[in-house]
Amino acid sequence: MSNDERRQAVKQIAVTMGDPAGIGPELCLRLLYDTKLTELVRPIVFGDAGVLRRVARQCGLPEPTIVVDPRQWQQASCKLRQPAVLDLQVIEADAVRPGHVDAATGRASYCYIEAAIAAALAGTVDAVATGPIHKEALHAAGIPYPGHTEIFAAQTGAARSCMMLTSREITCSLVTTHIGYRDVPGQLSVARILEVIELTAEAMRRIRGELPRLIVCGLNPHAGEHGLFGDGEEERLIAPAVDAARRQGIDVRGPLPPDTAFLLQHRQAADAFVCMYHDQGLIPLKALAFDTAVNVTLGLPIVRTSVDHGTALDIAWSGRAAASSLVQAVLLAARLATA
Amino acid sequence: MSNDERRQAVKQIAVTMGDPAGIGPELCLRLLYDTKLTELVRPIVFGDAGVLRRVARQCGLPEPTIVVDPRQWQQASCKLRQPAVLDLQVIEADAVRPGHVDAATGRASYCYIEAAIAAALAGTVDAVATGPIHKEALHAAGIPYPGHTEIFAAQTGAARSCMMLTSREITCSLVTTHIGYRDVPGQLSVARILEVIELTAEAMRRIRGELPRLIVCGLNPHAGEHGLFGDGEEERLIAPAVDAARRQGIDVRGPLPPDTAFLLQHRQAADAFVCMYHDQGLIPLKALAFDTAVNVTLGLPIVRTSVDHGTALDIAWSGRAAASSLVQAVLLAARLATA
Repeated sequence: MSNDERRQAVKQIAVTMGDPAGIGPELCLRLLYDTKLTELVRPIVFGDAGVLRRVARQCGLPEPTIVVDPRQWQQASCKLRQPAVLDLQVIEADAVRPGHVDAATGRASYCYIEAAIAAALAGTVDAVATGPIHKEALHAAGIPYPGHTEIFAAQTGAARSCMMLTSREITCSLVTTHIGYRDVPGQLSVARILEVIELTAEAMRRIRGELPRLIVCGLNPHAGEHGLFGDGEEERLIAPAVDAARRQGIDVRGPLPPDTAFLLQHRQAADAFVCMYHDQGLIPLKALAFDTAVNVTLGLPIVRTSVDHGTALDIAWSGRAAASSLVQAVLLAARLATA
Repeated sequence: MSNDERRQAVKQIAVTMGDPAGIGPELCLRLLYDTKLTELVRPIVFGDAGVLRRVARQCGLPEPTIVVDPRQWQQASCKLRQPAVLDLQVIEADAVRPGHVDAATGRASYCYIEAAIAAALAGTVDAVATGPIHKEALHAAGIPYPGHTEIFAAQTGAARSCMMLTSREITCSLVTTHIGYRDVPGQLSVARILEVIELTAEAMRRIRGELPRLIVCGLNPHAGEHGLFGDGEEERLIAPAVDAARRQGIDVRGPLPPDTAFLLQHRQAADAFVCMYHDQGLIPLKALAFDTAVNVTLGLPIVRTSVDHGTALDIAWSGRAAASSLVQAVLLAARLATA
């Protein structure tokens, strides 16, 4: 393979800058100069160059060198040969108050996502990896989505999708995501649980390269202990979905009692856990694998991964943010784009 | 101290045998011959000697040597100087089908508990450590309690109590315990959350010997993200309870987002977590500290600890059960009885 061919084979990944007031800009700067990473993939930061320059000065990091505007991007996107910043010019750098929740930065974070989705759908990038956004800022800007997963599902017209978090230690996908605790039982159905089992099996097959083994968690303590607790969600909803998935040839078992589902022996015997609600999956995942897990949206026509942490407003623009999760997200995006 | 005084200073701990069809009998046999343990505490197994003998033969373990019947116990309980079996003669050994859920063994497991509670209230034992029972067997026997915690609360007339699981890695106490997922929000109140914070602070002060630092979890994903998810349980119920506890001088913070509450940095900075529901606490506890955690019922007039695992029917009477959690439970019971 010639150098030129190798550069073309390298996947081009849109990396959204996240909320300008959070740690996203710092993470993107670290990414652009991570030569171990950029030998393997080509990150294109979708954000504001002015903000990145201000953060670089504040954190003592090098400023970005290759910056293109949207018109140049239209003309040259396929010919870019190096990591770059696509300067979307949404927000003035001086208008950003680091560490503050603000409708203007929430709006900006949304614009970066919209542009990245459009680029992925147009094929000018191979995948999207997203930096952290702030849900309250998004809400303050009047954006009617609770998070990335829902934005990507809506804007790509995905008929079905779900959120999965994956790490070396543990992988969890979620039947319900960003809804209140008490709204979960009403959102569970055999069809939805089966959908998430199918999406998870397909994604893990692409990641692992072989038929994965899945575990499905119950909803109630002790998985309802055969009807003693709860409203029989295990028998009515979860077990039928597991049975239907098995009939399709998926290697899956459950519903398991949630508190013992994540024991070491099960983690070693399973490639992924299908969880009924946000914290059922994210509590063990973050306890066991914080900072190395990657968030993937399954079921989309494009590949989308994300960091597994928030905007960390308390250390925004301080130079203390670790890019490990974003690096993993970019690498997994490239892998999934290839598979 | 003379040998005789030392023997008297050793705490006498009632150890209930648990469900005869589970791993409880094997664990009790291992306990009786654990000389490292019996140098420090004196376990008295409340169970059936016939079952223990049959299990000993089946597992290739030594049979119990010192066996007293209830009449001898009444006369001599305070003068026992060695680990022993109190033979309550509830069930015929030959009637037990190992690994099966059965009303008769459920009933027996309940009788052992009743006798142990009576002994603790009478002061003939210093504390109770309970072996694993099977909730379905208990239910089949018509016992109207979902678990140990509720039996102990009712039979000791405790005005308030809660379940806490403690290990070297992590300690969690539970505001709600063995109820269905959807019943949790209706059981939360400022008074109940405050009660569990107080009970946890008091117990951890006794265990640690100093003022403990507590973390209280939210109920909803991201602790409701300031009202975006859920019905404001964090603002209406949890935050006021935390504030009230702080006014009493308790070192407590929260509500924290449940998925990040259990990160290593928080585990290192806190002595215990107050959790809103069973799996919120038991998922991270079992993922991080299975087989070494001990279950403690707080708020009782007597000391009660327990294993953190179930009856493990699949390996009952096989000789493969590890007694580590029961050993820890007995040691903690002795420590709490001294404090």
